[in-house]
Parts: sequence; C-alpha cells; structure tokens
Amino acid sequence: MKIIIVGASGTMGKYLSNAFEKEHEVIKAAANSGDIRVDITSVESIENLYKQAGAFDALINTAGPTYVGPWKKMADKEFRKGVDGKMMGQINLVLIGQHYINPKGSFSLITGALTHDPQLNFANASAANGAVEAFVRAAAIELENGIRINAVSPTVIEDSPQYFPYFPGEMPVTMRQLEYAFRKSVFGANTGQVIKP
Amino acid sequence: MKIIIVGASGTMGKYLSNAFEKEHEVIKAAANSGDIRVDITSVESIENLYKQAGAFDALINTAGPTYVGPWKKMADKEFRKGVDGKMMGQINLVLIGQHYINPKGSFSLITGALTHDPQLNFANASAANGAVEAFVRAAAIELENGIRINAVSPTVIEDSPQYFPYFPGEMPVTMRQLEYAFRKSVFGANTGQVIKP
Repeated sequence: MKIIIVGASGTMGKYLSNAFEKEHEVIKAAANSGDIRVDITSVESIENLYKQAGAFDALINTAGPTYVGPWKKMADKEFRKGVDGKMMGQINLVLIGQHYINPKGSFSLITGALTHDPQLNFANASAANGAVEAFVRAAAIELENGIRINAVSPTVIEDSPQYFPYFPGEMPVTMRQLEYAFRKSVFGANTGQVIKP
Repeated sequence: MKIIIVGASGTMGKYLSNAFEKEHEVIKAAANSGDIRVDITSVESIENLYKQAGAFDALINTAGPTYVGPWKKMADKEFRKGVDGKMMGQINLVLIGQHYINPKGSFSLITGALTHDPQLNFANASAANGAVEAFVRAAAIELENGIRINAVSPTVIEDSPQYFPYFPGEMPVTMRQLEYAFRKSVFGANTGQVIKP
C-alpha cells in the first residue's frame, strides 16, 4: 500500500512512519523535511504534494497548527491559526486529495479529545477538531469509489509530556495505542468515524 | 432584559423577535434591515454593532451563511463561505461581545442537526456547526462573571419548507419548539450545552 504521511517530522508522524514503512511504501511529507515539503495552509502546496506523490492508497495527516493562549487575548487573528491550519489544512487535504487517491483509498485525519473535553487556553483547537469531525461524517457520505475517511482523536500522547500539565486528569495515550487507531482507520473498513485510541 | 437578536430579518430571527419583544427590550440586527445593520463576516461590523447597542444581557444569533452545493465542486473558496459566515461570524460575535455583555449575560448561537447527521451537499454547514458546538463547550469554561453560552441545534424548521426535500426523514421542528430552545438558553442557567428543540 502506498501511504502518504503528512506531518511526518512530528512526534506522531515519525512514530507512524517507522511503524508503517516496514510493510508499506511510505511517502513522508512535512513543512521542512521529508520526501516532499508541504505547507497544509496553502492550497497550492497541497496540490503540489499530490502531484509529486502521484496516485496513492492512504493519506494520514498528523499536522494541525492551532493557537494556544489566554482566552481574553484571542481574537479573529489568533483564531485563524487553527482555522487555516488544523481545520482547513486537513479539509483541503481531502477536497484536493480526492482527485488523486486510488479507489478504496482512505483519508485519516487528526482531531483530539478537546472536541468534547475542553481545556483552558485551547478553544481554538476545540473548534478546529469539532469542524474536522463533523466534516469527516459529511465527507463519508459524499466520497465515491469506496474511498473512506476517519478521524483519530487521541487525548495527550505519552511522547509529548510537555502537554500533560494542560490536560489534568487525561490519561496519556501510548504511541502504540495511537498507531493502532490509525491502523483501524487505514486498514479497516469503517468510514465517517471518530476513532479514539 | 436587553436582548440583541442578530439575523432578525430571517425566518427564525423574526419569530424570536416577535416572541421576546413582548416582555423584553429587543434590538434587532440584520444585514439589510433592523435597528442596527451588521455583517457578521466583518470584525469591524460586529464591533460597531456592540458599540451602537451598548451593554446588553443576551445575544441571540440566527444568522449563519454556508455553502450548499455538490461535493465535487467544493474547494477552499466555497468552503470559506461557512468558515467566515456561520463559524467565524458566530465565534467573533462571542470573542468581541464578551467585552460588552453584562455580568450573568448569555450568548445563544445557532448550529443544527448536520453536525451529527450529515446530508448530501451540506458538508460546509456540518463543519461550521461542529466548530461552533466545540467552541461553545470551550468558551463555557473560559467566560467569567457568570456569562453563559449555548448553541441551539434544530433540524429543519417548519417555516422553511424549501429545505424539507434535502433532509429526508428529519421531522421538522415547530417554531414554538425552536423558541423554547432559545428560551432555555437565554433564561435558564445551563452553559456549554447544545440544546435540541
């Protein structure tokens, strides 16, 4: 299977690349490294990614910039970081990628527990997650040729302990649990689902 | 109670204005009519709305433009209609309005069943709804001085029969049910809730 992993230089992307490249052709894409450079906030850059990668079977995205900061300092400008990043970045990966993906291919996006369990300073990520999860459900009834789409929604992950203090009471997800959630999305048959590792 | 109703010239806004102005001071705001003109896609216009209205107790929004159309023709440009409209329009009404609202005031936004029950051609609205509902939960833990926030999430409403064919199997909500959902949000004590009429 030919799998594109966007965000391949990040904590999640690296782990997934290592896990999947043992048995599959993995194309690593990231902002400043990897096989192909991509800026998911740019429609042109996403088009370029798919043109360079060619037809593929699975797109995994782990990239999703959002604004993290005090509520009272957050205005339209700050909020757009997550709108253009984690939200529209991922939505555009699908809207554009549907024209390049093979039949029976799949899109696996990243959201997170903040959709339903908000934390202080993370309202921008909550909104982006909520948008992507609703989009996943809507896209699942539109995509043709057996193409599937799911979101993986972890809470804090064990290899990013710097976030633990901001997520009191959230039991960290192991990297292996995260990997298996993506396995379910990529190699399973479900679509329109929000998969919790 | 001083209540600002944004979208006051629409089907929902008119009904709610008539219902609430019997017992409350209602300021009607809309794009092309009402006491104050407002374009919710413009941060400047929203600032102007609140400056003109002055301190208030409740903000009800029923305005929420989104793109409705075939999935395959939808790209970033089309998708931004709902991002800038129903999503950021409402989020900015709150981010800006928090600086004008009275203590113990409330924000009541509009989402819809499409968050969880998608329909063909409405993926943009699904995403906007999902964003707003997650934002409402996040904002509820940030707002101070007893300020509350909820979303009202109807399915098709009885006074908009033109939408019925696009929502097969959705039992239309009566205007009275819709009014009572907003009553719960404005006059109740809950916050961070998605209220289904």
